[in-house]
Amino acid sequence: MLQEIPARSGKALALEKGRAVKLVNTKGSQVVDTWALNRLDTSEYLSVEHTRRMLYRLFPEKGDMLYSNRRTPLLVLEDDTSPGQHDMLLACCDKWLYQHYGCAPGHANCRDNYLDALFAAGFDAHLVPNPLNLWMNIPVRDNRTIALDVPLSKPGDHVVLRALRDLVVVFSACPMDVTPINGADKTPQPVHYEILP
Amino acid sequence: MLQEIPARSGKALALEKGRAVKLVNTKGSQVVDTWALNRLDTSEYLSVEHTRRMLYRLFPEKGDMLYSNRRTPLLVLEDDTSPGQHDMLLACCDKWLYQHYGCAPGHANCRDNYLDALFAAGFDAHLVPNPLNLWMNIPVRDNRTIALDVPLSKPGDHVVLRALRDLVVVFSACPMDVTPINGADKTPQPVHYEILP
Repeated sequence: MLQEIPARSGKALALEKGRAVKLVNTKGSQVVDTWALNRLDTSEYLSVEHTRRMLYRLFPEKGDMLYSNRRTPLLVLEDDTSPGQHDMLLACCDKWLYQHYGCAPGHANCRDNYLDALFAAGFDAHLVPNPLNLWMNIPVRDNRTIALDVPLSKPGDHVVLRALRDLVVVFSACPMDVTPINGADKTPQPVHYEILP
Repeated sequence: MLQEIPARSGKALALEKGRAVKLVNTKGSQVVDTWALNRLDTSEYLSVEHTRRMLYRLFPEKGDMLYSNRRTPLLVLEDDTSPGQHDMLLACCDKWLYQHYGCAPGHANCRDNYLDALFAAGFDAHLVPNPLNLWMNIPVRDNRTIALDVPLSKPGDHVVLRALRDLVVVFSACPMDVTPINGADKTPQPVHYEILP
């Protein structure tokens, strides 16, 4: 049964080896920053800089494994109904980014969502890895420059991530409302998930 | 006066705000993994995922600022005599990579060099950020795939990095001898550095 992650908020969930989580982009325009940690030793985490190296690719595609900072496969991107544009290049939004944009202190952000969600799940985070930013559309041009663009996904698009280890998976429905990465209307939206057998 | 960093080894050095370090690729073919940390609070570090976002570019160029995980400029790439191909996409080599390649345990690697050099300088590392890989030639093709290629630098090419904060800078002369990223002969070489006023 689908559970909601409200707009601008995060959620950490235990995902046993062999199980999968289906994440639905309910409105179609919402970026979800995604982390995964080895549940028995959270110093091992999904590392985009290791995943790029193992895939020889900037971005993941359906069927790809996602690797840890110990070069161990943690997840498989088992299904993906969207055009497959996800990002592994950019840090999550944080209080310093909103300060940079002149927002008042206290703006919701993915970094705090990550820390708070992990804390609620019983873990203390010592670092914030570069997340996998699902549906985030960061086009690379001339093999050199990057831009921030609106998602290419449609309402109801979903991904399925299957665990290859016992994991904690953290999602943050990105609160960004300054740039158009959550759609041209710059309006963060809720998303939904369910654990599959 | 130039100091040597022997082949396959690392060095951490204090770099005061306003000072610069000149790093010389003595043989021309050597990749140097490079980290920088705020000396007063090492939980702030040079973050390539934040730097890409602030530069809107995959790789740094002469004149660019390099940002921390708090989106603060830590360094300026003040000079660069090479063709300017440096990497910010790949994790440093580590014991798991050499295991992946079938090497015997104990192969020198940039991750251990980083941890050991920081320890020798009086710091305990709690994480290993994705480094700036100076002279590492990771061409991006079709805005999508990446490859491992030989450096484009020549003997004596150098970079100058100027500190905008009081920093600890860590260099590792990359011990990679399996792939050609340290030249077609796959032979790690020493490099040299000096602190400039």
